Amino acid sequence: MSNKIKLGIVGYGNLGKGAVKAVKATDDLELTAVFTRRDPETLELDDPSVKAVHIDNASDYKDEIDVMVLCGGSATDLPEQTPHFASMFNTVDSYDTHAKIPEFYESVNEVAEKNDTTAIISVGWDPGFFSLNRVMAEAILPRGENYSFWGKGLSQGHSDAVRRVEGVKNGVQYTIPSEDAIAKVRSGENPELTKAQKHRRVCYIVAEDGVDKSTIEETIKTMPNYFADYETEVNFISEEELARDHSKAPHGGFVIRGGKTGDDNDQLYEFSLTLDSNPEFTASVLVAYARAAHRMSQEKQFGAKTIYDVAPAYISPKSAEELRRDYL
Amino acid sequence: MSNKIKLGIVGYGNLGKGAVKAVKATDDLELTAVFTRRDPETLELDDPSVKAVHIDNASDYKDEIDVMVLCGGSATDLPEQTPHFASMFNTVDSYDTHAKIPEFYESVNEVAEKNDTTAIISVGWDPGFFSLNRVMAEAILPRGENYSFWGKGLSQGHSDAVRRVEGVKNGVQYTIPSEDAIAKVRSGENPELTKAQKHRRVCYIVAEDGVDKSTIEETIKTMPNYFADYETEVNFISEEELARDHSKAPHGGFVIRGGKTGDDNDQLYEFSLTLDSNPEFTASVLVAYARAAHRMSQEKQFGAKTIYDVAPAYISPKSAEELRRDYL
Repeated sequence: MSNKIKLGIVGYGNLGKGAVKAVKATDDLELTAVFTRRDPETLELDDPSVKAVHIDNASDYKDEIDVMVLCGGSATDLPEQTPHFASMFNTVDSYDTHAKIPEFYESVNEVAEKNDTTAIISVGWDPGFFSLNRVMAEAILPRGENYSFWGKGLSQGHSDAVRRVEGVKNGVQYTIPSEDAIAKVRSGENPELTKAQKHRRVCYIVAEDGVDKSTIEETIKTMPNYFADYETEVNFISEEELARDHSKAPHGGFVIRGGKTGDDNDQLYEFSLTLDSNPEFTASVLVAYARAAHRMSQEKQFGAKTIYDVAPAYISPKSAEELRRDYL
Repeated sequence: MSNKIKLGIVGYGNLGKGAVKAVKATDDLELTAVFTRRDPETLELDDPSVKAVHIDNASDYKDEIDVMVLCGGSATDLPEQTPHFASMFNTVDSYDTHAKIPEFYESVNEVAEKNDTTAIISVGWDPGFFSLNRVMAEAILPRGENYSFWGKGLSQGHSDAVRRVEGVKNGVQYTIPSEDAIAKVRSGENPELTKAQKHRRVCYIVAEDGVDKSTIEETIKTMPNYFADYETEVNFISEEELARDHSKAPHGGFVIRGGKTGDDNDQLYEFSLTLDSNPEFTASVLVAYARAAHRMSQEKQFGAKTIYDVAPAYISPKSAEELRRDYL
């Protein structure tokens, strides 16, 4: 038997596929099975040592899996799946409905405490590393202001919105941080900025043949909630250009804190991510925190945990001695 | 009695002065006393509730202080002071001689474990937040390369070196990250770069009257170890300009990891600090980790700890509920 930490992956969409790849990039983790609601026979897993199993049979794997990496969506999957799996396994998930995190935490914590499992919730980048940096920056620099900028990133919700406009055949929307706003924040003046002042929106639209493009542009730019408050740019392109230039899911952003210490010294703290693949990055974070869930469970740190509760050493494959010697 | 966490500060140089200011910026910490090797009467503390006490009398304060913030230097102070104080108090320090951290850790850990104290060592920004980001970035993106850039920053050692050159009346040296090198790293090509390729050096020199400036410039630029391997710029300025423009101690830098996930997706992780005052920032980190030392000691997590061992929630004054609700 190998000494590796044994993982299961629940869900085989973009996030689950990213998690399979993320496990392969490590030396101390191994994948035992992928659990799916589909017919397991239809899953294309290129590693013959990894089983595809129907999600209803997961309980058969209680003794074979150390941590379940939950790769379902936040709207309907995770509110059911995390408490369900946390009753049998250590888990890690990327639950990202910010406003509902407190109640999600409570429901998972109850199950995990009762069953002596460790359930790390809401890791990824936001919630996740962005959340972590907002708290650490504020703890160090209490006098100051946090700014989160998102993008350049493909926004699924806004892309759906432009595709619903009459005459639009296909299209995508990118959220882009405003360079002006970033420059103001970096200058140390701690400006008040709305979300609309911090970001602009850029659309690439494939129009139906013969429709009036200026009407489409006007409809998008004046769409309430989605675009009306923002500086919005609409570009018309061909179906070929859309497929060629806009098929990836890039994302990222910045957390910046402009703080002051002493009499009047500006101290600028910045964290940023520039991601070619949003789901692959989130999956990589999930897999690193699966390592932490296993270790914390071995130390009997049971219950629901967030990124704030996990000592950073737990996510690294290195020993404490190596970290002190080679990284500190 | 207040419910605040009571701190002592040991050492009243730039770091200790920064720590006094950092405590004032918090609502949950208070300063009980500053300990000094000098005559305590000579210390100018503008807050009458803070005592100045001779360092030899620190043991009288065992029941009055929760955490001692050690603000001495790494060369000779901390190797003696941290084990000494960790025998009586929880401590936090910014020991920064990277190569000797493992032996420093051992000597502090032995005392802290024996006396049931919590001693957080080597926090600040490097070692400290830079170390933290190197480890977290690598844990998430195992396929990739870490790059640390320092600056723009005033380098004490290099400033001393230029001031020793014949004909130099006064001067300072800044280490500046190379824009070219940063651009290469951000492009995702994971280049091999020496420290000299990542940085350039810029000097501001006040020359003695009547000396040959070109000789000074040549001597600096060819100085082995310090400058010969670097792109070095030498500027001559007046004593007035030096006082006006170069009296602060700015520093900062970047930790960048260029990683790959999946087949060929570039994922860029960046952390940076731009600091007007290096000692005030380090002191602010020390004070936030003093909060952690107190809490970990209350949970009987005794022994020497590094930034890798401290769950982020411990450094924040907010409750776990507030963090989940407002920051995650």
